[in-house]
Parts: sequence; structure tokens; C-alpha cells
Amino acid sequence: MIKNPIQEKLESGEVVVNAWLWFGDSFAAEIMAAQGFDSVTLDLQHGLIGLHEAVTMLQAISSQPVVPLVRVQSNDSGWIMKMLDAGALGIICPMISTREECERFVAACRYPPVGIRSFGPSRCNARYGADYADFANDSILTFAMIETRQALENLEDILSVPGLDAVYVGPNDLALALGYPPSQDSIEPEVIEAIDRIVTTAIRYKISPGIACPSGEVARRRIKEGYRFVTPGNQAGMMAAAARTAIECVRG
Amino acid sequence: MIKNPIQEKLESGEVVVNAWLWFGDSFAAEIMAAQGFDSVTLDLQHGLIGLHEAVTMLQAISSQPVVPLVRVQSNDSGWIMKMLDAGALGIICPMISTREECERFVAACRYPPVGIRSFGPSRCNARYGADYADFANDSILTFAMIETRQALENLEDILSVPGLDAVYVGPNDLALALGYPPSQDSIEPEVIEAIDRIVTTAIRYKISPGIACPSGEVARRRIKEGYRFVTPGNQAGMMAAAARTAIECVRG
Amino acid sequence: MIKNPIQEKLESGEVVVNAWLWFGDSFAAEIMAAQGFDSVTLDLQHGLIGLHEAVTMLQAISSQPVVPLVRVQSNDSGWIMKMLDAGALGIICPMISTREECERFVAACRYPPVGIRSFGPSRCNARYGADYADFANDSILTFAMIETRQALENLEDILSVPGLDAVYVGPNDLALALGYPPSQDSIEPEVIEAIDRIVTTAIRYKISPGIACPSGEVARRRIKEGYRFVTPGNQAGMMAAAARTAIECVRG
Amino acid sequence: MIKNPIQEKLESGEVVVNAWLWFGDSFAAEIMAAQGFDSVTLDLQHGLIGLHEAVTMLQAISSQPVVPLVRVQSNDSGWIMKMLDAGALGIICPMISTREECERFVAACRYPPVGIRSFGPSRCNARYGADYADFANDSILTFAMIETRQALENLEDILSVPGLDAVYVGPNDLALALGYPPSQDSIEPEVIEAIDRIVTTAIRYKISPGIACPSGEVARRRIKEGYRFVTPGNQAGMMAAAARTAIECVRG
Amino acid sequence: MIKNPIQEKLESGEVVVNAWLWFGDSFAAEIMAAQGFDSVTLDLQHGLIGLHEAVTMLQAISSQPVVPLVRVQSNDSGWIMKMLDAGALGIICPMISTREECERFVAACRYPPVGIRSFGPSRCNARYGADYADFANDSILTFAMIETRQALENLEDILSVPGLDAVYVGPNDLALALGYPPSQDSIEPEVIEAIDRIVTTAIRYKISPGIACPSGEVARRRIKEGYRFVTPGNQAGMMAAAARTAIECVRG
Amino acid sequence: MIKNPIQEKLESGEVVVNAWLWFGDSFAAEIMAAQGFDSVTLDLQHGLIGLHEAVTMLQAISSQPVVPLVRVQSNDSGWIMKMLDAGALGIICPMISTREECERFVAACRYPPVGIRSFGPSRCNARYGADYADFANDSILTFAMIETRQALENLEDILSVPGLDAVYVGPNDLALALGYPPSQDSIEPEVIEAIDRIVTTAIRYKISPGIACPSGEVARRRIKEGYRFVTPGNQAGMMAAAARTAIECVRG
Repeated sequence: MIKNPIQEKLESGEVVVNAWLWFGDSFAAEIMAAQGFDSVTLDLQHGLIGLHEAVTMLQAISSQPVVPLVRVQSNDSGWIMKMLDAGALGIICPMISTREECERFVAACRYPPVGIRSFGPSRCNARYGADYADFANDSILTFAMIETRQALENLEDILSVPGLDAVYVGPNDLALALGYPPSQDSIEPEVIEAIDRIVTTAIRYKISPGIACPSGEVARRRIKEGYRFVTPGNQAGMMAAAARTAIECVRG
Repeated sequence: MIKNPIQEKLESGEVVVNAWLWFGDSFAAEIMAAQGFDSVTLDLQHGLIGLHEAVTMLQAISSQPVVPLVRVQSNDSGWIMKMLDAGALGIICPMISTREECERFVAACRYPPVGIRSFGPSRCNARYGADYADFANDSILTFAMIETRQALENLEDILSVPGLDAVYVGPNDLALALGYPPSQDSIEPEVIEAIDRIVTTAIRYKISPGIACPSGEVARRRIKEGYRFVTPGNQAGMMAAAARTAIECVRG
Repeated sequence: MIKNPIQEKLESGEVVVNAWLWFGDSFAAEIMAAQGFDSVTLDLQHGLIGLHEAVTMLQAISSQPVVPLVRVQSNDSGWIMKMLDAGALGIICPMISTREECERFVAACRYPPVGIRSFGPSRCNARYGADYADFANDSILTFAMIETRQALENLEDILSVPGLDAVYVGPNDLALALGYPPSQDSIEPEVIEAIDRIVTTAIRYKISPGIACPSGEVARRRIKEGYRFVTPGNQAGMMAAAARTAIECVRG
Repeated sequence: MIKNPIQEKLESGEVVVNAWLWFGDSFAAEIMAAQGFDSVTLDLQHGLIGLHEAVTMLQAISSQPVVPLVRVQSNDSGWIMKMLDAGALGIICPMISTREECERFVAACRYPPVGIRSFGPSRCNARYGADYADFANDSILTFAMIETRQALENLEDILSVPGLDAVYVGPNDLALALGYPPSQDSIEPEVIEAIDRIVTTAIRYKISPGIACPSGEVARRRIKEGYRFVTPGNQAGMMAAAARTAIECVRG
Repeated sequence: MIKNPIQEKLESGEVVVNAWLWFGDSFAAEIMAAQGFDSVTLDLQHGLIGLHEAVTMLQAISSQPVVPLVRVQSNDSGWIMKMLDAGALGIICPMISTREECERFVAACRYPPVGIRSFGPSRCNARYGADYADFANDSILTFAMIETRQALENLEDILSVPGLDAVYVGPNDLALALGYPPSQDSIEPEVIEAIDRIVTTAIRYKISPGIACPSGEVARRRIKEGYRFVTPGNQAGMMAAAARTAIECVRG
Repeated sequence: MIKNPIQEKLESGEVVVNAWLWFGDSFAAEIMAAQGFDSVTLDLQHGLIGLHEAVTMLQAISSQPVVPLVRVQSNDSGWIMKMLDAGALGIICPMISTREECERFVAACRYPPVGIRSFGPSRCNARYGADYADFANDSILTFAMIETRQALENLEDILSVPGLDAVYVGPNDLALALGYPPSQDSIEPEVIEAIDRIVTTAIRYKISPGIACPSGEVARRRIKEGYRFVTPGNQAGMMAAAARTAIECVRG
């Protein structure tokens, strides 16, 4: 039986700290997975990660006590199913703007009769056991990204889709969509209000609220706002900032 | 004509801040190369970087204002020549313990009649111009790693090898070789003394002194001790530390 | 001129034994191709095979006397055309549920005026000769997968699409679609009946009937039922079963 | 700020000579980029280039004075955005047949409020500077491929789409679409007339006219016809022709 | 602390069943690792596995309860150390023919002062814990391959090298070396006698005796002869045999 | 039984035209192999080709009527054997300067009792048949590169090594070794004389004479001088020259 520890955490209202991978490198992924995160997400949308690399990364993080997630490039059921077959225990789908899009996304993550996922759990039986298919529908988490103006308008419709487990706010795109500069910590009242409305509404619909953050500090603040699934920066930004700090220290 | 800015810096006694790559990923390499380092070293000894990956990494850092270096896996002339053909402007060779080993290393980096490098600058003409071969012998830097007891005994013999440009101290291996726990900032007097003797002797022989460091702080101290080529940590350690800091910040 | 031996076999009612690849490894592909199969299918839906790997696999099996086929990830004309350009002589398309879907699939496999395939046979001229484009439309096989309830309802409509050469039954998905546990050899009467109806109808429409099987034994039975294109297991399952048998033999 | 030299050239009516890559190899890409082209296009439609390879190729050509372009596999916004995040400064989109398709294509290349591009310029900040997002919408070129009968019918509708910068004629597909054999230098009057009508109309709509050519000779002729963005053959054809010439020379 | 379960098994005289990998594919490796073997060996000598592939394979098998071993290409200390840094818990070194070769091999597997292994456990800290270096020397297994005439002559000298844990017989090469056709189950008395002498001598020197076998049946027989580390075929042979069996079953 | 057509050609004094690959890309390799060469050499010394890439390239050229050869990086028996296991039917070994080096090289290419090649023809049985090992020693060609001053001094000693089939002159390195600028068509009398002496001596020792050439024209001349195995340029140079010609044609 598949164990999905972050599912239990989210259901009991605990905080999940998530890692975000942009490098298509399994060694870097394993290093990240060993630092204490609850989950590790391969970003196949803005990260530069091919299919072959994604598979090796999912394998590499399997020996660490983290839950593997994938942010897919788009709401394409073929790619969603492929990443599930490769071992992802949750999918973050970008740009969900309507109820229909959300239903389509969720359906791709569930075997019939609940959804339309095609059967062929290539890596999953080796990784999660022979009974994978029995528990997959219940154990795989679905995150709809809320990051467009249309999504805000359809928020209740989206959040009430059966089978949706969580939302994940993309603050950069949300700010852009509302007519402001991209920022993961925007000071624009309209953006702040939208981010606040999403978490409030999600909680009302018993949907776990998640959000991308530029740093641990902002993540900490988001938790106070009610968010429960937070990503405190991505691996590229973390590495780059640490490198700049080291250089400055040397150069004085 | 090849420009090797760190050669000029080292010859004039300026400090060179070097990046250290362990991930076989060209995107992570480019990110590192964009942070302000003077040079970027691909570690083919302890990093997990195959030949194909090394080539793409050398290409990726070529658009940034850094000098590409390679630490080879061992003193194997075939691999040294290959990395030079792929565009490295300097080679750091591990475990140089005798004058003969140093001569063999340096010879692999130079075309005849100075050395024995085979002619076939596959990527170098596209990258450095049609006259690459005219300047390669003068522009490529050779770093001998001093990290064994035998190397300490043969220090003067090694440092006086014609064509050797620099030394690079491996403090972990040096500490181990002297019978102490591996550390890049050992407090053992014998190790401290050895590291001090290397920099003093190198300066006497007009050999640029370089050293691996665990952090910017230690690198800063090494510069005060006389070292001029310093590596303030590697990319894996930098990324991991930043990730742990972010997690701790979130969890409080 | 392209020779497609399994086309001849299927047209004359002979049996085609097909291999099924899940590993994105060209050496494993070549080994499989050397064992005596008539055709070898790269499974890009449930197998873990990236584009680069698929190309090397198609090349690797080209020196063996087998016909290269590809099961695409979805009915996406861009990917179908890409695999044809890479040398596939047949496409197996999953989840064909309507006549329109089948028409779209077939059109992607044929150059105008018959279909909409874009011209650019990158690997095909080197592999099949300068006259590839003259014969491609006639030599490339199209397999529509019948594996949904909707497909059963639209069976005649699908099978009568001009240019469709064959069907390929996915028994796991078909069983799931009908409300039963996934199985490639289901004992549920409704599934058995569906599988029987497909072969009967296919023969009536002069469409070659194909099916996925869990073993040589079941494949043999399917042939008796009328199927002519059979896959007796996939490479992962074959390797795993052989490994377990060897271990059991050793351990006694 | 991003500099896009071919944008300036095209706006001032100068000729742009473009390279066309089919090999998923970053070394071959860098060699091509070093020969004097104004721009280099990765062909992800008919070339055999996976995502990982595409990223390394875009990196490899970054150290050469060329503008990186990508011909995407299809009008799929997820892939278009990915290639922009990886550093492409222009997208050539195949099979644009209607105004709606063109609008959708252009929207994928622009951040809101102009378009729908998702924010996450993973490689672009390192490559083009921290202000990449400020200039991206103005600096990225959009090329709609005109290569179907329907596109000819909708030519004015397509060319008047706001934000479209250029067209790129695919003469092979265009000839096929009009019922003739594929050729990049067709002698069929209907094809010649269509190619002539496209350049005339494009100029009228202030859209830069581009076209694929089989050779430098044909490219030269196309320039006389008014075309300004020309591709004089692809790397595979160039290499193959040179190899055959060398063999013939040896064998006499 | 590293746990090396096969070390415990071998020390207590239990049988270890080992898998043998020839495909450079991490998915195939994980499948093999999930079938019940005690250890899994990446064959970098005759398998077709590059460095990058080897790293992903070692990662992939880390989530399964098997011990990762590597047969290196040759007695090259650079490559031996690299595979240890990548996470191998044992090295099988081919063609050990003299005591000096064996000493050199063993030294490469041990940190000073016992050996000469360079410090830089890149993947090992993430995989085995921060105290990896404290236990590495005691936990890593060394297997010397006995497969030349000279090795037979020097058998006692080789087996008495301090730090050698096991031998691994290569019956094909041994048969060839003795002047007979290559076979993993030779019926030549001289070969049989040599294989018998190796196991007897190994046991006398408290060295674990291992051997390559063509099948489970032969492995079972070898165990009766005293061997304790047995490889019942490799993944390529297993997959190929299973494929041929399935084809024969279908064709009747 | 392995067929090695260039062996027959060389034995009967016919000319062999050889291709030279520098790109680690199997598609580019297949294109080259389809142009009419007798043999295709992967240059693992100056080309940028990793092991994984080399394997896919050897597979890719297997479907074309060419003989696959490999120029190894150095006289390292482990890598020589690996490339033979991967399917090379001949090895070109750089920098053979003494009889002992030549003997060591030749021995690595032959199974005992003739040589020391280790048994494990991983890809060869699938590619060349089950009886590969019976014919390998007779069918695999050995080319010693003559390109150092020392090699000229030891020419007769080298050429008389039993099992050596051919020499391959590296004119660039030879010119450098003699104190002149690197050139594949040097006008220095001493270089010309050396190249002439090599062909004369080779013929006397019944060793096939081969040489690298910068163009078809020079290759033609070398044939007149007696050379029988000629390489008229490498793929990178051919592609680059063709690209420059096309650009010049366009720009006028």
C-alpha cells in the first residue's frame, strides 16, 4: 500500500514544506531530498527537465523520506498519466481557470470509474508494491494552480470539483494576471486580497491551501495566513543566493 | 587569441574566487557561472559528471565571464587532453606526489615541443578562434594538487617543474594523509603547518597558491595566509545549506 | 522503397508476434529485436522512454529484421509525426473512442492530400531510401486502440475509417472501463464478450485485429480467437519473471 | 536588456541568414553557430531533438554572436513557453492556418496583459539579465508558418494578428497542400504564385517574410523575390552533401 | 552508519544471490533490484554503462533492499574511487593476477591510513549519513576477480592481501586463459579443477568465494561446491531467454 | 560469422574511404554512414563522444553498409575492450611509439591465447551472431597510429608486431613532433619524407597504410603515394565548410 505522508499532514492541518526542482539532475535532486523537506516537486513547467531526467529524479528521491510531486507543463492528460506511472504521488497542474479544466485535470489522475487514467503503472509496482492500483486513486494528490483572473472568478466552481485535494497559488502569474509586476510577495492590495481570498475559500471547501514563496520568511508568513503547503524558494535560487553570499564574504 | 583573465590576476597577485561544480547539469553550471565567480571548475574527480555532461557544462558557462577549469579524475593524459579539447583553460590534477608525476601532468597540457598534448582542438577553434593552437601553451593553467605526505616531502621538487603554474591544496586529503580526520579547516597543528608551508614555498617558487575551502569565511582567512586562488565551498554544499536554512526558517 | 513485412503478413492473415519495450535503452531494445519477433513496439505511453531515447532505440533495432512500431502517448499529431520522421513504420494510438478521433489519428500518419502529415522525413531517407515519401502513405500501419466503453459503442464507426489498418485491444483499460479489475486476461464475461466482439467486427471490416497479452500462452489463445497481431508480455515483465525464477532456483 | 539583432535587421529590411539544426547535439550546434549565421534555429518539429538536448544546444550557441530561435513541434503553448524560458528569442510555429491559431500562438509568446505566457524565466535571467521580463514581450520574435491551403485562404486574417512579427514559408508542405510533390524549389506555377503572394502580402502588412530554402542559390533568389529571413539548407543536408562530395573526389 | 547486509551474510557463511546489470538504464535496474536479489552489480566492464548512467542506476536501486556493487572496467583507482563516491558498497575488480595488483585494488577502496582513497564522498553522505567516512573502510567489500593463469599461480599471494574480502571467479575468461572455449559451466577438467581450487583456497584464507553463473541451476551447484556469492545470469540473458520462450510459445 | 568488408579490401590492396565522427550524436552518425563510406570511425580521442553516445552511434551505423571503427582515447586496454564489446570491428590506437606499446595494443584486441581480451561480447552476439567469438580475433582490425618522433625511430619494430593490421598516420601530431606547425598537408620536407617512409615501410611489412587527410583532394593524392585507408576530413569540418559556403552564396 502506498503511504503518502503529506496527505495525512494536510488532512490534519499540519504544515508541509516542499522543495522545488529546476535542474534536470538526479544527484542534485537527491541532495535536495535529503535536507528535511516533506515533499519534493519536479517543476516540468518552468524547470528545464526532460522526461528521461524526470524519471531518474523520481528514482533518486525515492530513497529519501519525501513525497515525490510533479508540476506538469500543462493540463495535458498524457503527460500527467506518464508522471504518475513514473512514481509521482501528486500532480500540480498550472493554469486551472475553469471547473471543466479542473475536472479534466482530476480525471487524468484517477483510474476508472472515477477518472480516465490509463492503466500501466510501469514503475509504480516496483516502487509501491503489487497492490499499487488498489490505492492509487486514494493516495495521489491533486493540486490545481490558481493564477489567472478567470480562476479567481471561477474559484468556488473549481474548488468544489470532486477529487480535488489542494490548490497551489502561483503569485507571479497571479500578479501579472491582475495587471501588476510579477512578484512572489506582491505588495499590491488587489494581489494580497486575492491570495487571502484563495486561502479562505479553500479552507471553506476543505481544500488544502498551498502557495509558492520566494523565501522561508515569506513561507512563514503564508502559514500564518492559513496556507499549509509552502515552497520556500527553488533550488536554483537557493544555490545562486548562497554562491553570491560566499563570493561577497570572500571579496569583503 | 585566448584570453585567460585569471592568469593575469594570478600573475599580478590578485585574488581569484573559484566555483566548484559537482552536478553534471549544464543549467546548474550556467547559474553558478552567472553569480560573479572568476573561474568555474568542473570536478571530475569527486563530482558525478560524465564526459558528455562535462562538454555541455563547458559550453554552458562559455557565455558567462568566467574561466572554465576542470579537476580531472586522475593524472591520465588521455582525459586531460580531452578536457582541454573541450575548452578547459586550466587543469587541476589530483594527487601529484612526485616531480615525475608533475612533469607528466604538465606535459599533457602542452603541445610539442614543450609537452606531449595531441593535436585536435575540436571545440577550441570554434570557441577561442582559429589561432587557438598558437596561444594554448601559454594560456592554459596547470594546477598540481598537493594532498599527500609524499607531496609534502617532494614539495620543492614539484614546485620547480617548468610549466607548472599553480598548486591547489586539498585539505581533506592532506589531513587524512597526515593521520587526522578529513577537514577543510583542520585545527591540527601539523595540518595547519603543512598548509602554511605550501603557500610559503609556492610563493617562493612563483607558483600561484590555491586551496579548497569549506566556506567564504575560511576562504577569506586563506587569502590572509597568502593563498590567491580560493574555492569557497561547492555547489552541492551551498544548495543544501540554503535549503536547510529555508526549512528551519519555515518550521521556526 | 520501404518494406513493411508485417503489413504483408497481416494482409495475408498470418500471425505477427510483437515485442513491447518499456526501457528507454537502445541496447536492451537491440537485444529484444534480436530474439525473433516480427515487430518491436516502443511504448511511449506507459513505458519510460524520452524522445532522445526513442530515436536511439529506433536506430538500434534497425539492424535487426523487425518492423519498428511506436505506441504514442496520446493522439497528438505532433508526436505521431515526430515518431514517423524518426523511422517508425506504424503507430499504435491509445484511447480511440470516436470516429473523429480515429480520423484525426489516421490523418496524422499520411501526407496530403490523404492526410495532414507535415513533410520532413529527417531519418527516413537515410534509413529507407530517397523515395521514402513516395511509399510512406502505403507502408505505414495505423493501429487504433480500443479500450474504452465509448469505443465499444462506436466500434463500427471507428473501424470503417478509411486508412485505418488495425485495431489493438488494451485489455487492462477495457476491463477497467467496463467496471472490472484491470487484467490482460480477464475472466469477466462482459470483458470476454467485448474482446470477442472486437475481433469479429474487425475481421468483418478487414481491419487486422491485435491485442496485448500477459504471456505467450494467452497470446496463443488470442490467435485461436482470431487475433493476428499479438504481444506476449513486455520486456520489463519478461526480465522480472526470469530473474525471480533464477532466484527461486538458487534459493531452492 | 535583451538584444535581438535580427529584430533590428528585419525591421530595417536587411537580410537575415538563418541556420537550421536537426541534430540534438550541442557541439554540432556550437560549430554551426560559429560559421557566420545571423540566427540559429533548433527544429523541434522534424529534427530529432529532445527537451534536454534543446536546452544544452541553446546554451552552446549562447557564446556565439547569433540569435537563438526554435521551431516548435506544434502550436502547443506549454512547449512554446518552455523554449522561451530556455532562452529562445523567437519561435517559429508550424501549420498556422487560421487567425485564431495565430492569435493563440502569439499569445503564448507574450506575458500578460498582452498574452498568456506564464512567468518563470528560468534560464533567461542568467542569460539576459535581471530585467529580462521587462523587455521579453518586445524582443521575442514570432514567426507563423504558412504552409497549408487554408493558410493561403486566411492569409490576410493571419498577417493582421497584432504581435505577429514574421511569416516563414514551408515550401515542401505548401507544395503538398496544393497537390504537388514536396519541393523547396517547386516549379509548379501554383506553388510559385503562392510563395510570391505570401511575400507580397507580408510586406504590405509590415510582416517580415521568411522562407526555407534548399541551398544558398535558392536563398539568394528568394531574397530577390523580397524574402528577408532565409535558411539556406539544414545541417544534416549540408554535412551529407559535403561528405558525398569528398567521397566522389577520393574515388574519382 | 552504513549497513551492508551482504557483508554480514558472507561473514556468517550465508548465500548471497547477486544480480548483474548490462543495460545503462535506471528503470531496468530498479526493476531488477525489486525481484529479491541480495545485491545488484553494475557491470562497467562488459556492460554498456556510462558514468552518468551508472550514477542514476545506483540511485534507482537505493530504494530497494539490495546492496549496490560495481564491477569496474579495470584496476584503475580513479574509476574505483568514483564509483565508491557514487554509492557503491563493494567493488568487483577484473583481472587481478598478482599480489601487487590486488594490493593496489584494495588500497583504492580504503581511506588513509589504510589505503589511498581520496576524500570526497559526494553522494555517500546524502545516502548513508553524515558519518559515512567513519564506517566506509569497514563496510565496503572488495572482490578480486580470479580469471587468468597468472592469478591461479599467485592465488595464495592474492588471497592473503589484507583488506581483501572476497574473490569472484570469471569462468569464461578462466577457461579461455587455460586454453579452452569460453564457458560459464565448462566441462574441461582443468577448468573444473581450477574453480574448485579457488573456492577451497578462498575458504582457507577466510575470503568469501564468489562466481559468475549462467543460470540458477549452475548457481545452485556452485553453492554446493562452497561458493557463497553467486550471480545466476545477467539481465540481458534473462530478458532474451524469456522473450524467446514467449515467442516459441506463441508460434508453437 | 562477422563480415569485415574493409579487411578484404585492404588485403587485396583496394582503397577504403573512411568517415570521421566528432559529434556524439547517433542521428548525425547514421546520416554520415549513409553517404557511401566504406568505414565510419568514432573518434573518442579528439571528438567529444561519451561512452553512452558511442554505443548508440555504433548501433545507429549498424543498419548501413559500413564497417564501424573506433579511435580510442589512449592505449588503455579497458576502453579498447569496451569498444569491441560494443561492436567496433577495428580499433585505431593513438600514439603508438614503441614495439611494447604496439604489442599491448594488439593484445587488448584479441582473445587468449593470442591476446588478453576479456570475454563478454555484450552487444556482439546480437549484432554479429552467436559465433562471434570464433571469428573475432581474425576479423577485428588493429590500426597503430604513427605520429611521434619515437614512433619513426621504432617504425620497423612497431610494424613487425604480429597481429598488427594497419598503421594510421596522424599528420598534425607528426608535424608537431618534428618541430613544425600542425598540418594535415604539411609542406615541410621532413614531414613529407616521414609520411612517405611510413607508407613504404608499411607496404614492405604487409601492413595496410592509412592516413588522416584534410580533404578529398589530399586523400586522392595520398592514394597515389600508396596509402589505402584514407579519411577525407571529419564531419565537423565538412558541415562547417558547407555552412560557410552557403552563407557566402546568400550574402554574395
